[in-house]
Amino acid sequence: MKNYFSSDFKLGILGGGQLGRMLLTETQKFDIYTSILDGNPNAPCAQICNNFVVGDLLDFDAVYNFGKTVDILTIEIENVNIDALDKLQAEGLTIYPKPKDLRIIQSKARQKHFYFDHQIPTAPFSHFAYLEELHHCLENSIISFPFVWKAARFGYDGNGVKIVRSFADLESLPNVECITEQLIPFKNELAVIVARNADGETKTYPVVEMEFHPEANQVEYVICPARIEESVAKKAQDLALKVVKDLDFIGLLAVEMFQTETNEILVNEVAPRPHNSGHYSIEASYTNQFEQHLRSILNLPLGNTASKVAGIMVNLVGEEGFSGDVIYQNIEEILKIDGVTPHIYGKKETRPFRKMGHVTIVNADIDKARKIAQQVKETIRVISK
Amino acid sequence: MKNYFSSDFKLGILGGGQLGRMLLTETQKFDIYTSILDGNPNAPCAQICNNFVVGDLLDFDAVYNFGKTVDILTIEIENVNIDALDKLQAEGLTIYPKPKDLRIIQSKARQKHFYFDHQIPTAPFSHFAYLEELHHCLENSIISFPFVWKAARFGYDGNGVKIVRSFADLESLPNVECITEQLIPFKNELAVIVARNADGETKTYPVVEMEFHPEANQVEYVICPARIEESVAKKAQDLALKVVKDLDFIGLLAVEMFQTETNEILVNEVAPRPHNSGHYSIEASYTNQFEQHLRSILNLPLGNTASKVAGIMVNLVGEEGFSGDVIYQNIEEILKIDGVTPHIYGKKETRPFRKMGHVTIVNADIDKARKIAQQVKETIRVISK
Repeated sequence: MKNYFSSDFKLGILGGGQLGRMLLTETQKFDIYTSILDGNPNAPCAQICNNFVVGDLLDFDAVYNFGKTVDILTIEIENVNIDALDKLQAEGLTIYPKPKDLRIIQSKARQKHFYFDHQIPTAPFSHFAYLEELHHCLENSIISFPFVWKAARFGYDGNGVKIVRSFADLESLPNVECITEQLIPFKNELAVIVARNADGETKTYPVVEMEFHPEANQVEYVICPARIEESVAKKAQDLALKVVKDLDFIGLLAVEMFQTETNEILVNEVAPRPHNSGHYSIEASYTNQFEQHLRSILNLPLGNTASKVAGIMVNLVGEEGFSGDVIYQNIEEILKIDGVTPHIYGKKETRPFRKMGHVTIVNADIDKARKIAQQVKETIRVISK
Repeated sequence: MKNYFSSDFKLGILGGGQLGRMLLTETQKFDIYTSILDGNPNAPCAQICNNFVVGDLLDFDAVYNFGKTVDILTIEIENVNIDALDKLQAEGLTIYPKPKDLRIIQSKARQKHFYFDHQIPTAPFSHFAYLEELHHCLENSIISFPFVWKAARFGYDGNGVKIVRSFADLESLPNVECITEQLIPFKNELAVIVARNADGETKTYPVVEMEFHPEANQVEYVICPARIEESVAKKAQDLALKVVKDLDFIGLLAVEMFQTETNEILVNEVAPRPHNSGHYSIEASYTNQFEQHLRSILNLPLGNTASKVAGIMVNLVGEEGFSGDVIYQNIEEILKIDGVTPHIYGKKETRPFRKMGHVTIVNADIDKARKIAQQVKETIRVISK
């Protein structure tokens, strides 16, 4: 085994946002040297990694030149220049997740084709090079309203996704490559994180459940374990494992899924890295998703994915109507409650809906955790001065 | 409440060693700006705090000038220039723990006098300005062999402590201020960590037990919870609370104690900061000792001190016969075991007995954890290339 600990080994990370920041907690724990590339000189990781390089993640030269300075390369965001990764890999650099998987995952269209090719259940879809093609198909009744429109690339946190019910809804959409999906009525939105290392060792986290606000149709809570039947959980985990095996994936893969009214499980989309749906693991799991990501890409033995206690995560997003220097109003109120841990991502300025942090609630009793999560959500406010 | 989170508030920390490094994990989680003073430009904190200043912690000017640049000042090591802290405090700076408490705790003689003055049970002692005085008392049979000799100041991790059985044993001792203590036969060495904030809110961690190697008389395992009777645990926690209240202490105080053959509890010594005996809390507790230290000095509400699972800590110290660039031999073997987390402190070079890291073992079953701890101890080796 390569000596990673307190050595001259250099781990390169593409992206220096909040996921990178939480990953750095683990590299510091293991004393693994980190070098990070990000386009923003004030990125959350800028001050706390060993070496920070400013450069555009989508620029071939920036990514290629950065890759030449590290021993193993990984990502905390999938929107990076894959051509540079291909060249680096051809020249012998170890890159996990593999460039070929990033290429598939970067495009929602390629993802969907991959699921169909491998008999992975997913919502039926159509694929269009431009919005005009979609218009044409609608006018000729080849597809019909309503449907879900998704930009094929660079969608993030609900950006690039829209439910389309009429021609009027189409008007605000950008003229880019896209897919349309049949609107699937689902009982639950679930997610499973799977880790796999180069030796082929594979470990699966428990199924988590996204609980939606009854009116706003927004995810309010990520709950681990999901409050679903054992047989459904098993089906979801098996399906996530199938995706990992079909990709021959190495690293951490978060698989988002729908549980339909008839208990079918459909893959929605995947993320090749630590994921919002796994943040609960920092406080709740024996091995959190960030340590597990490190273990998987460094081909270390994988850690125990079981939970010590139930965990619920609430995102902290900038409140509407506030922009500027952030204040976490009432944070001291939530700190009074047992088992409540805020994570602040290090962004000085809030904007409406900007992801500024998250709060984890852990408790031996999941129902108590759920009540406290609601109390947290109703108490803390991300506003500006 | 002062706005600490993602704000222009600056927390100053005297000392940039491993305790500071683990504290930084928590300041990063809360996005609190940190400035650190340490004499070693390669200290474990040097690369990962927001601002690192090289300067001698015992030098008046270095500490004073550093203190003038921060909003609240704390420590991760108690051997700092207290005169500078007194002046900073007089000029209005908030310093926790308070300089007066650091002055008491810096000196083992003052600690002992404090315990006697406040009827805090502790082993009987004598206090000598120089080794010659001790010689004189022994020659005149005022005190008798055997006894424990302790340097009054700057002892650390067993340095500055010696069991003296004869005049021959005295010869290697430095001619410094010292105390001697009656050798107390004890059943257990215990420790309790107490947190208290400026509002007077106080929380006590469970009692931990130091398990010694049967021959080497060295602490091998720190075990939480201690395997002792409930009534003894209660007595130990009450005594630790009494020390905190008698000092009117603010911050985190680790109280080391002996449980005698007759179940008396005697205070051995205290540390005014996160402590080796609380490292288990990172993986085992709802609120780890480093987050709790922050909460206490910032006058935030204190967190839950209960454990999610049983925790055992094993120190990683440099093996005898090895000096130079460190290798953690067999670390990948211990990573294979469920619930095992190594912490590597970021020191590039090992030396015999140097504290290089620790390993935490957590398990719902304390007996299983104890077996795994032994397996860890027998597997990992801290050696050099």
